[in-house]
Amino acid sequence: MPDAPIPPGSTIGILGGGQLGRMLAIAAARLGFHTHIYSDNRGPAFEVAGTHTVAPFDDTDAVVRFAGTVDVVTYEFENIPLALARAAMSQAPLHPSLAALETSQDRIREKAFLTSLGIPVAPYVAVNNADDLARYSGNDFDAVAYPALLKTSRFGYDGKGQVCVAGPNQLNASWAGIGKVPAVLEQMISFSSELSVIGVRQSSGEFTAYDITGNVHQDQILKTSTVPAEIPPEVEAPARAMTRKIMSELDYVGVLAVEFFHCPGDPSAVLLVNEIAPRVHNSGHWTLDACLVSQFENHIRAIAGWPLGTTRRHSNAVMTNLIGKEINQWSTVAADQDTAVHHYGKGAPRTGRKMGHLTRISAK
Amino acid sequence: MPDAPIPPGSTIGILGGGQLGRMLAIAAARLGFHTHIYSDNRGPAFEVAGTHTVAPFDDTDAVVRFAGTVDVVTYEFENIPLALARAAMSQAPLHPSLAALETSQDRIREKAFLTSLGIPVAPYVAVNNADDLARYSGNDFDAVAYPALLKTSRFGYDGKGQVCVAGPNQLNASWAGIGKVPAVLEQMISFSSELSVIGVRQSSGEFTAYDITGNVHQDQILKTSTVPAEIPPEVEAPARAMTRKIMSELDYVGVLAVEFFHCPGDPSAVLLVNEIAPRVHNSGHWTLDACLVSQFENHIRAIAGWPLGTTRRHSNAVMTNLIGKEINQWSTVAADQDTAVHHYGKGAPRTGRKMGHLTRISAK
Repeated sequence: MPDAPIPPGSTIGILGGGQLGRMLAIAAARLGFHTHIYSDNRGPAFEVAGTHTVAPFDDTDAVVRFAGTVDVVTYEFENIPLALARAAMSQAPLHPSLAALETSQDRIREKAFLTSLGIPVAPYVAVNNADDLARYSGNDFDAVAYPALLKTSRFGYDGKGQVCVAGPNQLNASWAGIGKVPAVLEQMISFSSELSVIGVRQSSGEFTAYDITGNVHQDQILKTSTVPAEIPPEVEAPARAMTRKIMSELDYVGVLAVEFFHCPGDPSAVLLVNEIAPRVHNSGHWTLDACLVSQFENHIRAIAGWPLGTTRRHSNAVMTNLIGKEINQWSTVAADQDTAVHHYGKGAPRTGRKMGHLTRISAK
Repeated sequence: MPDAPIPPGSTIGILGGGQLGRMLAIAAARLGFHTHIYSDNRGPAFEVAGTHTVAPFDDTDAVVRFAGTVDVVTYEFENIPLALARAAMSQAPLHPSLAALETSQDRIREKAFLTSLGIPVAPYVAVNNADDLARYSGNDFDAVAYPALLKTSRFGYDGKGQVCVAGPNQLNASWAGIGKVPAVLEQMISFSSELSVIGVRQSSGEFTAYDITGNVHQDQILKTSTVPAEIPPEVEAPARAMTRKIMSELDYVGVLAVEFFHCPGDPSAVLLVNEIAPRVHNSGHWTLDACLVSQFENHIRAIAGWPLGTTRRHSNAVMTNLIGKEINQWSTVAADQDTAVHHYGKGAPRTGRKMGHLTRISAK
């Protein structure tokens, strides 16, 4: 049953105050919405939002007060405690749903979900305890080939919480290294490229997606996103179809990002899903400058029950993250006539911190 | 002497809290600036600005405190008292300059300035007092033909403060009707179209301009702006050149809009300047959706001493203002896949109030 559209003048509540919240708040303002940001510190989103709550992410009383002032609640990162999300839901609708949050904040659960839909993922096993580990260290274990990655099931991002494992004899030390928490042991995939699809779905079931994007990581942090991606044209349709299937199955409302590995040499699984993110995504930042309606606006439209906007792009684009001290290039890059500069207004340029991004566009 | 660029993290002060201030604040945020809005009421710009001052526009103490917190001061409308602008200048640079403000907030002065540059304007005379009026009512007066417009020299916008005068016998009553204030009596021009150029100039003298725009007014309020304008190609270069000349002469920093009448039947003055506005302008709103760098961002870049961004458009565009109750169409227009919706987040849709706008883009 589609929600009735929330009219301009209503308030969008956003959990999280980082750059994604900032770009969501700007998109919401453009459509005439107020925004109320909830975060544990005064992040970059506060500058462009009308109302703010600073409170810890485990303060369910504070979030109940927050959610009581808004018409819909959304979030800019998937690692918010479920108890917080549930408390917010006592006051206002939560989009994307709790199910999307639960699924995507736990790698074991996410991979099981994808597998249940028949969507290929890299060979993996769940590591819940020392017994599992002992089993996978045995000679008869061949479900995952080496080298492999051991990733914490929860709270990983930008390569945090994961280590490379060269062989079974390293398993114990690796698991100790990530704190002996539940994890997945995942075969390292020899892919030719990393891709992503930014899908958007409304409560009516209306679905659309931006053009598939080619992504390059450096030091496990996204460095560039390029559209059109350098892939054979036949890759796009199945990637879109998988995205749509995932979103339908979750009865998803809002923007969801699906990251793929493209493995043209593997006839059984040319496309593997690496992970999903139940939110606007860094690999969709190019939509701000190369599309009439950005991923941020389409997320707001979806959660507000509005008709979705176009996902067509009017230009080709290469998005480049400015990480750490790269932000100091702002005055040089601002002179480039084909490039849009986005500066997140963060303070000190710490190593590995996403400080801004550039979008270079060109005619299609 | 070019100003040193103001780095991200600095604060842009904006006098005025309406939709132009709102779109300026969003553009400033995108470049990493804080914004501080000064207005006599909590207008639409407040929602997207980090700091606010609510104080009357004649409170020079308040504006001194305001300007003491910012790195540069700009304004979103030209009718701010000069005393306020001067007080702000005691604390921070003002862009565009006081000279631009003085010239454009007084029609008599503006027309004299344009004429001194050899830029054609409609035939006009200044009405400063009853003696002037008596003279223009005489039989030997032929500098302005009828029908004519009598416009207050100051504080006019959207057709406010002007009346049509059919003949000299109506002059006295018309002047009484506008309050017997200084005015211009201006010949009504039979033009084929209204055009505008949005120019932008940096303190180094660097100049660029967006493509000339065709404008249609309804009830003296801008209704649509279209690029490309339906004009012969040879019209664009002189319009650009006049814009550049005006800006150079004022040593202008920021965005300036020049409104033209196109009179193809008049070989002595095919292009007349109707008026100039020392600010971002409604007829440049299409740049938000059809250009990589909008008029708002280029204004911020210019006043911050940054290199100017491109003024190229990637798409054709038609901008339509949503005036008064037209804003209630938001849910219908949001479904149009070629149209961007901009909602200013104002309260009640009063008649004649600009509530939002649409931009419909198409491939060039």
